[in-house]
Amino acid sequence: MTKIAYLGPEGTYSEHAAKLWNHESELIPSDSINMVSKTVENGLADQGIIPIENSIEGGVTFTLDLMIHESELLICGEIVIPINHFLMAKEKIELSEIKAVYSHPQSLGQCREFLKKHLPNAELLASLSNSTAVKEMLESNYSAAAISSQRAANLYDAFILKENIEDRPNNETRFIVISRKDHEKTGDDKTSLCFEFDGDRPGTLGFSLMEFASRNINLVKIESRPNKKDLGRYVFFVEIEGHRFDQNIMQAIDALSMNVSMLKILGSYPKHK
Amino acid sequence: MTKIAYLGPEGTYSEHAAKLWNHESELIPSDSINMVSKTVENGLADQGIIPIENSIEGGVTFTLDLMIHESELLICGEIVIPINHFLMAKEKIELSEIKAVYSHPQSLGQCREFLKKHLPNAELLASLSNSTAVKEMLESNYSAAAISSQRAANLYDAFILKENIEDRPNNETRFIVISRKDHEKTGDDKTSLCFEFDGDRPGTLGFSLMEFASRNINLVKIESRPNKKDLGRYVFFVEIEGHRFDQNIMQAIDALSMNVSMLKILGSYPKHK
Repeated sequence: MTKIAYLGPEGTYSEHAAKLWNHESELIPSDSINMVSKTVENGLADQGIIPIENSIEGGVTFTLDLMIHESELLICGEIVIPINHFLMAKEKIELSEIKAVYSHPQSLGQCREFLKKHLPNAELLASLSNSTAVKEMLESNYSAAAISSQRAANLYDAFILKENIEDRPNNETRFIVISRKDHEKTGDDKTSLCFEFDGDRPGTLGFSLMEFASRNINLVKIESRPNKKDLGRYVFFVEIEGHRFDQNIMQAIDALSMNVSMLKILGSYPKHK
Repeated sequence: MTKIAYLGPEGTYSEHAAKLWNHESELIPSDSINMVSKTVENGLADQGIIPIENSIEGGVTFTLDLMIHESELLICGEIVIPINHFLMAKEKIELSEIKAVYSHPQSLGQCREFLKKHLPNAELLASLSNSTAVKEMLESNYSAAAISSQRAANLYDAFILKENIEDRPNNETRFIVISRKDHEKTGDDKTSLCFEFDGDRPGTLGFSLMEFASRNINLVKIESRPNKKDLGRYVFFVEIEGHRFDQNIMQAIDALSMNVSMLKILGSYPKHK
């Protein structure tokens, strides 16, 4: 049975993504995104599943930095899931009774308008994960609520006060599946890579992106991350359409590699449908 | 006297930046980055100072999204300050006695190695700001510590256990100064702008950046942010060298505007030295 490491504890959106990715796998909860990677590197799991991007909040910087700087793994797949936030409490109470709301800061941010309108006086308390938020809410001594997933509500037996309280529709998170090898060609693939320029500014970025454009390779995503040595120096994380064994992509990467001080291919994988 | 709104409460790195920016100003603490902008828009302050980028963690997404989507203000200046994290407690205690550490998740992340090495068994607790972390630590009933600034330690009378515990040297944060108008030309300026493409992918990004490169305009920074409507659709936040009234920059922006569905000039300002 395939073993899949994910960012736990149970009840997180990551667990939901892992189940959808492979519902017959054995799921191994990990404490951190870093630990998911380590668990796969050590062979204790075959694959790891970690969030890389949300349609509202943007890139998950911890995952980007892990793939750029630390992980030896390759991306072998991706999966996109809708994110729906639920407001829950120990038992049925009126919204006006709620004194505090626990959640991960990102989820509090995604429900900012809802909170401003319906819970203007509640104190907002940060938790390290949406599942932790439910546990902290259940242990609190006063009228508290938590923002978390439906699955967490079921798992910890919390009472759902309100469904889908996120401010914007189309709240989706994309997860990548990491493994010791990437995926063979399927004909409808994406490739992720990252690179850094020598010298003190990314002025050559435009020229470098032309290596893809001039070969009809679609750039689907670009993110800049700090190189962590100097402010204003970046590593670029790029996703293109196609497989790294396609002729035009091999040529583009060859040409690109002439102008960079670092280039790391992070894997090719079938597009999520 | 100039009034400057900043992300409070007192003791934050933002307050430190505001003091360095103009030490004779009247400082107005605000609850959120959004509120800093609102305070200036309403005329209750002349300028606002907000973090936009850290050399380790990268872009401050809340500030980028505010400037892209919401604020009517322009960037009139920038300032870069070093970030040094201090470990503090109610009184002098041994590190081995510490059961929990409060801080903003970003600061916990920036001291990850230190925490793993010196406080492997302490529980990490998220706070909404580094100043709040100190207050929560002081109010806790057990042996807790907080990670915050030297100024916060002094302000709240916490005992400093260890100085400069950040994992990486060169930890710096860049702040922008926002106002109802930007800065006139000084001859050593930067310009910030953002734009979005029509169509379903940023394949035209390479061509668009060539509008700058072909006119010898240095691109100093590019960040992509989700457009918040569809996963995989982005707004690009770009910084270039020069003033928006320079001839070559006016031409480049004119040419760029032909190929975008949205373009917003966020202001020109003297480079921080």
